Amino acid sequence: MDIELTILGSSSAVPTSLRNTTAQVLNVLGRFFLIDCGEGTQLQMRKYKIPYNRINHIFISHLHGDHFFGLIGYISSIGLQGRKTPLHIYSHKKLEIILRFQLETLNTNLPYDLIFHYLDTSKKEIIYEDKNITVTSFSLKHRDVPTCGFLFKEKEKPLKLIKEKLKELNIPIAQRVKIKAGADYITENGDIIANNKLTTRPPDPRSYAFCSDTAYTEKFLDVIDNVDLLYHEATHANDNKARAKQTYHSTAEQAATVAHKANAKKLIIGHFSTRYTDTSQHEKEAREIFPNTFAVKDGDIFKI
Amino acid sequence: MDIELTILGSSSAVPTSLRNTTAQVLNVLGRFFLIDCGEGTQLQMRKYKIPYNRINHIFISHLHGDHFFGLIGYISSIGLQGRKTPLHIYSHKKLEIILRFQLETLNTNLPYDLIFHYLDTSKKEIIYEDKNITVTSFSLKHRDVPTCGFLFKEKEKPLKLIKEKLKELNIPIAQRVKIKAGADYITENGDIIANNKLTTRPPDPRSYAFCSDTAYTEKFLDVIDNVDLLYHEATHANDNKARAKQTYHSTAEQAATVAHKANAKKLIIGHFSTRYTDTSQHEKEAREIFPNTFAVKDGDIFKI
Repeated sequence: MDIELTILGSSSAVPTSLRNTTAQVLNVLGRFFLIDCGEGTQLQMRKYKIPYNRINHIFISHLHGDHFFGLIGYISSIGLQGRKTPLHIYSHKKLEIILRFQLETLNTNLPYDLIFHYLDTSKKEIIYEDKNITVTSFSLKHRDVPTCGFLFKEKEKPLKLIKEKLKELNIPIAQRVKIKAGADYITENGDIIANNKLTTRPPDPRSYAFCSDTAYTEKFLDVIDNVDLLYHEATHANDNKARAKQTYHSTAEQAATVAHKANAKKLIIGHFSTRYTDTSQHEKEAREIFPNTFAVKDGDIFKI
Repeated sequence: MDIELTILGSSSAVPTSLRNTTAQVLNVLGRFFLIDCGEGTQLQMRKYKIPYNRINHIFISHLHGDHFFGLIGYISSIGLQGRKTPLHIYSHKKLEIILRFQLETLNTNLPYDLIFHYLDTSKKEIIYEDKNITVTSFSLKHRDVPTCGFLFKEKEKPLKLIKEKLKELNIPIAQRVKIKAGADYITENGDIIANNKLTTRPPDPRSYAFCSDTAYTEKFLDVIDNVDLLYHEATHANDNKARAKQTYHSTAEQAATVAHKANAKKLIIGHFSTRYTDTSQHEKEAREIFPNTFAVKDGDIFKI
């Protein structure tokens, strides 16, 4: 089953007529995770057919408005529609202060629980875990604004028994747990049958890393090493390299350098400055360093 | 020159894929007024080519999220784009508390002044005035939520002198101010020339009234008497009359009754419940009472 990423917003700071501000939905085997929530995210979810009441976990990278102004509308709408399931928000603690202040000032009682999990932006840590995946937050470099990236990674799956082989060798059921855990099998005669004759390796765990907003930095390379799909912001092309540095954003070339050094399999870039109506230059500059790069548009879907 | 109303949102409570939540822009001879500001209003302004940095006055009817959640994004975006001109917001005082709390918590310094004018929702009063128009707020009936409607009305223009006539009669320039103010002219011979021979009446002042959200009430009929264009919410059709009453909203028939009793020239209805994908029933029921009724869509433009 695919892991599927839908881009809901790809503009930086201010939306344009073609690009909303940052938001993405990651569908991991039927569980939907929302990453950032710029203004209009609930509208984009409707437009792109995201089953938006099935989101139980929201990850907010940092508290610039273009990454969270859509949250109050989203949490209100699902409340009006009668949601009962708790909603978990992973963010800087100030987000809880702001949202609860607004809800209390207006005497709004949501019919479900909002549960906040504060991000420690100074280190990498596992912030979410279920039977399929872990989510690890890691530190980005965005001036003095505490900012996190997120790595979504499938857990290692157990080895798969080759049932025909086990039957053929008449291996007792009691042994199967050990073989599944990697053990060889020793027959009654004392012959050793190597584990790899009895099992197949599961597919490699898949992974997605989200890195926005950030100046160029290599400090999280170890976290995202070998990632399948990397989203890295590329607010500017090289014509505005100085501006990127000044505002703690990245160029497409810098995003590609990160992808290259992290041995990523595929790079997608977004968070484009409104000064660009066309992002082919971003793509061109990035591909010189990391050929498998794509500039995203709202509504794009990437399968892992 | 036309007075022009653009509908930016026509859904109630929760947006749909076709309708944003409430927002409208009224262009009065080149001055743009924003009325309510649901989530995504800045996006709608871009979509419908509203010169959105030219808005200096925003009127917020009440503090339900579908009428103001777009404000934080809008005021932030125009700040990022370097606005210097003060922005006036007419609303319940809690809106200032919420917005300033959020700006202060995130250490956001807008490069322009936000000036709040608190609405007294218990009475009608002139809350804005310039050389062309007045804006009067008046009380609506929306459960326990303080809610205002707004009447935008052109000022009476002075009489227009018929220059050829004045020349023909050789009327001294000194007399013209009096004639313009309505006086007859007395010739040197003592003959009286009636004012209406010397002047033409200016066009009648045009007016627009915005009434959302409200249960059926006649208490503001005097304020909107003879209005040219009336917007009245019609969240429900008659099939949900009980629901309308319970939630302090109106049916299309009730909106039409208000238009009829106020001697309005034209009625537009909106703020449709998400349970309706089609609003022809609203239009049909309203037209039985007030034929000149139209159900709005996002992007509709009405000229007065």
